[in-house]
Amino acid sequence: MAADAMSPKITVELLRQLRQAMKNSKYITEPIQAYIIPSGDAHQSEYIAPCDCRREFICGFNGSAGTAIVTEQHAALWTDGRYFLQASQQMDNNWTLMKMGLKETPSQEDWLVSILPENSKVGVDPWIIAADQWKNMSKALSSAGHSLVAVQDNLIDTIWEDRPAPPSTKLITLGLKYTGLTWQDKVTALRGKMAERKISWFVVTALDEIAWLFNLRGSDIEYNPVFFAYAIIGISNIKLFVDSKRLLDPAVQEHLELDSPSKPELTIQCFPYESVYTELQAVCAALAPKEKMWICDKASCALTQVIPKSHRSVIPYTPLCLAKAVKNPTEIQAMKMAHIKDAVALCELFAWLEKEIPKGTVTEISVADKAEELRSQQRDFVGLSFPTISSVGPNGAIIHYRPLPETNRTLSLNEVYLIDSGAQYLDGTTDVTRTVHFGTPTDYEKECFTYVLKGHIAVSAAVFPNGTKGHLLDSFARAALWDSGLDYLHGTGHGVGCFLNVHEGPCGISYKTFADEPLEAGMIVSDEPGYYEDGSFGIRIENVVLVIPAKTKYNYRNRGSLTFEPLTLVPIQLKMINTDLLTQKEHDWVNDYHKKCRETIGAELERQGRKEALDWLIRETQPIV
Amino acid sequence: MAADAMSPKITVELLRQLRQAMKNSKYITEPIQAYIIPSGDAHQSEYIAPCDCRREFICGFNGSAGTAIVTEQHAALWTDGRYFLQASQQMDNNWTLMKMGLKETPSQEDWLVSILPENSKVGVDPWIIAADQWKNMSKALSSAGHSLVAVQDNLIDTIWEDRPAPPSTKLITLGLKYTGLTWQDKVTALRGKMAERKISWFVVTALDEIAWLFNLRGSDIEYNPVFFAYAIIGISNIKLFVDSKRLLDPAVQEHLELDSPSKPELTIQCFPYESVYTELQAVCAALAPKEKMWICDKASCALTQVIPKSHRSVIPYTPLCLAKAVKNPTEIQAMKMAHIKDAVALCELFAWLEKEIPKGTVTEISVADKAEELRSQQRDFVGLSFPTISSVGPNGAIIHYRPLPETNRTLSLNEVYLIDSGAQYLDGTTDVTRTVHFGTPTDYEKECFTYVLKGHIAVSAAVFPNGTKGHLLDSFARAALWDSGLDYLHGTGHGVGCFLNVHEGPCGISYKTFADEPLEAGMIVSDEPGYYEDGSFGIRIENVVLVIPAKTKYNYRNRGSLTFEPLTLVPIQLKMINTDLLTQKEHDWVNDYHKKCRETIGAELERQGRKEALDWLIRETQPIV
Repeated sequence: MAADAMSPKITVELLRQLRQAMKNSKYITEPIQAYIIPSGDAHQSEYIAPCDCRREFICGFNGSAGTAIVTEQHAALWTDGRYFLQASQQMDNNWTLMKMGLKETPSQEDWLVSILPENSKVGVDPWIIAADQWKNMSKALSSAGHSLVAVQDNLIDTIWEDRPAPPSTKLITLGLKYTGLTWQDKVTALRGKMAERKISWFVVTALDEIAWLFNLRGSDIEYNPVFFAYAIIGISNIKLFVDSKRLLDPAVQEHLELDSPSKPELTIQCFPYESVYTELQAVCAALAPKEKMWICDKASCALTQVIPKSHRSVIPYTPLCLAKAVKNPTEIQAMKMAHIKDAVALCELFAWLEKEIPKGTVTEISVADKAEELRSQQRDFVGLSFPTISSVGPNGAIIHYRPLPETNRTLSLNEVYLIDSGAQYLDGTTDVTRTVHFGTPTDYEKECFTYVLKGHIAVSAAVFPNGTKGHLLDSFARAALWDSGLDYLHGTGHGVGCFLNVHEGPCGISYKTFADEPLEAGMIVSDEPGYYEDGSFGIRIENVVLVIPAKTKYNYRNRGSLTFEPLTLVPIQLKMINTDLLTQKEHDWVNDYHKKCRETIGAELERQGRKEALDWLIRETQPIV
Repeated sequence: MAADAMSPKITVELLRQLRQAMKNSKYITEPIQAYIIPSGDAHQSEYIAPCDCRREFICGFNGSAGTAIVTEQHAALWTDGRYFLQASQQMDNNWTLMKMGLKETPSQEDWLVSILPENSKVGVDPWIIAADQWKNMSKALSSAGHSLVAVQDNLIDTIWEDRPAPPSTKLITLGLKYTGLTWQDKVTALRGKMAERKISWFVVTALDEIAWLFNLRGSDIEYNPVFFAYAIIGISNIKLFVDSKRLLDPAVQEHLELDSPSKPELTIQCFPYESVYTELQAVCAALAPKEKMWICDKASCALTQVIPKSHRSVIPYTPLCLAKAVKNPTEIQAMKMAHIKDAVALCELFAWLEKEIPKGTVTEISVADKAEELRSQQRDFVGLSFPTISSVGPNGAIIHYRPLPETNRTLSLNEVYLIDSGAQYLDGTTDVTRTVHFGTPTDYEKECFTYVLKGHIAVSAAVFPNGTKGHLLDSFARAALWDSGLDYLHGTGHGVGCFLNVHEGPCGISYKTFADEPLEAGMIVSDEPGYYEDGSFGIRIENVVLVIPAKTKYNYRNRGSLTFEPLTLVPIQLKMINTDLLTQKEHDWVNDYHKKCRETIGAELERQGRKEALDWLIRETQPIV
């Protein structure tokens, strides 16, 4: 059942052209001996627009993570374990695959140093490399006698004939009903934080921060309702850099009060997207000696270096990132509504699957399509929040699986089925995983599922003091698996945006980080432990959960406690649970959760007149005894 | 019942002298405007010898952590929350107490920058500041136009008339019976690690690493069986820097094979302790261009800077630190024996307390003395491993409490008693805490004790994959407390040496770190959750536990699993447990643990003919039902 080999991209001619560009004085003053092609865009986005898929263009590999480096003689791609197979299938033999995480694989720096002639110049587009990455690479090269140079023209773009145009989709304005706060309120609050830390300017580079700040959304990047823009916020200035065509829309004009700002300090000055560099230079030139400017450590090297060191304050999480993470009551209410609608679609899906699977025509891809169709029937549906992971049997063990025609399996009564999916609604973003069996699961499958469920409950029901970082909860999700010698090799949860990116900082639940910000009431994260048996099946149980205050018997040092409330309300398949392995507390949790699903989603199914799904829901939420 | 105010040290004259020294061209070429006095010694030891208590000498404050800075006008001391009260009592009004951790308290750097005149010089003894601390301070000062300068003569020593001489205690040689490996084997293994990483020299600066490597012990620092020395290990050289008088002992001469080394590359060249600087310079001068030298990031600035940057490889944990942490079978057996003897002493102590307390004459100090007396009766007793924490009622809530005449409370039938104590034996180091009540504990005391016990068991019985870092287990110790809104504000465990320092790296169990090394079978750590009710009582249950392989039902990716085996075998007081709050698993754990205490310690008590303690042990280890 392995995938058919994908055919690799033929890159001989492209590499020849790129190597010519590396010597072309039109783009660079002196020839460069190597050129680095990172995967990101100018905003270090997790997902990128087609015009930014430069690494895929040059080597053919289209996974989400990877860096290509081309020298006069060599071409190599670094990627991680998720993508070794895919990258080797998509690249032709002009490319060497550098398997990250293996002992024998050199780092990019070490590899460059080992093959470059003396005094080499290594080029990179300073807009798509973050300032800290630049610094590390530059240091390593310098100490070996080479140098890292910024190449202003992106050399891939110079040889990419049919490169898609940068997107400039229609902007959506979000009213108070969805946001709870006007953009003016948000700017004022931000300025409060700036004043507190004696900061006079803040260069906003993350697309979701700009979208959140201005209560605007776009669709420049698939699955992420953001739009290409920069903002520079001063104590009495607001400079927005965005394609000016987008501002012609009267709704946007009115929303941003472009014609008649209510207050002078809330007047938005609009500039073309491309002029952020020169405008930032102008702002910096006018800075008083002690003035400080914030910029995120994930901002591009190009923009970061515009700010003179003495004025630059580089921060890991911006105040917008923090403010965005703590949802206000309106956003929480909206997220709850989005999750109710999303659960309606999934209840329908599962009811439909039960009927259709015996016919033998339902495939991973057709379920994904059906799920999208059902979601799209819900009010204020905008699109998916990420590509649906729909996986049968062994495909479920591939954590980042996405069904393709050549891997597509048919759902049956004999294999475990895992679906991880989510959507964007005007009122919120969803992300839910359920693992189900439509026949009779084996004892082993049930045992593993039950350990994963115990982990899911351990996090969901955890009570912990205010100020606790999410990474401290990660082991709770694993304890039941660990007891039996099992584990899963991914984190347990990520922050979730409100009609924004499905992955957002600065909070999460993962053993891999230490730098997450403490959990606070109003934050929203996923709770998604799993277990993956290679070649056999995958299990994951994921809810999106809201951090809420917890009532506790005592209150040590008046710190207060927190716990989680599930926003996702989709039944967890009882057939997969070995109830003998549950404690009384876990048993009660399952029944309470299903009662809430039945009441909340049942009412909505009834309202929408979706009878079959309602019957399914009622059957699937019977209490266990 | 608060402590009598201690009288502060009068420092007017000392500060006058120090400020004169800061301008004295005998010590410095140009006057300095500030002088930093850290608490450490030249080896960044946790405990220090009297000759190194320079910070205490200048300001009077004798807590374990704190940094003093003296300028021409000001004198300030930075310390943390544990010591605010003590520091304010011990210092006179020439000193400003800088309360670390409070928002309004400036960092040392910020404070210096705010008060220094332009272009100031700040001096520090480069031997007692770690290289990374030097770097940070130097950077902060430079960016404000000042400079950090190394003052070779310690200015405190120049004004400290009756400064104690540096200790040079008799060395103890440890044979294979205790160490399992000869020092020659250890040097050879170390060289293997060096060759693996292409390192030609290693500058050993941590005292416990040197003691462990050479199978030698000393008593230069109270509680820590170490001796002042440095070592520089090359691929074919061993340079040991130690007071030459100590090597006159024939046992030491023979142990180190000073007269007749078995192999040329195992010949130890001995140098005076003070000549490490010039000898390291000589080694560095002879380095080939690509040769690299290891030094720990906690080594002094003075030594670190001797090594040219191009040859310097600074590491957070040295291979000796890692090798020392994983105890070999002989060391494990020896540690077990030490813990059996230690438990014998504690059983005797508790049996004695039960008889004596009703007389009303037993105090915190007298228990500590009795515990030491009983321990000293055990074979191979060397001394205590740290100052005994013996605390009644509210004193128990002071986490780093140590009874003093003015705080000494009498034990009674009405209050909780906490004793955290340990000893050094030739075969091992112990550290154990028990919390007991000699009358009838309140329901609340029992409830809190039971939560702490649940946390202790959750760690002790945890099963986790090979490669797991200890900090990932920290939340297990807190879950039961968190559920009720309680917590404790210290880590859960630290590494424990084998007849070495009671606190050692690189492993531990604490939410505060991320940089600990993964737990491995053979490592030994403490498991010591607690609960502290300010003004009322303190609870802590501490065992020293050994990391061992765990048998699990499955074995994901063949990683193998680990768990803990308690080495400490002292009954946990049943009277303090609310058994209704225990799960069946916890219930069984308590009974299994007590069975092991009864069998193992009972046999030894019998062998030693300690009848009363045996009776006490048997009564205290009855199974709970």
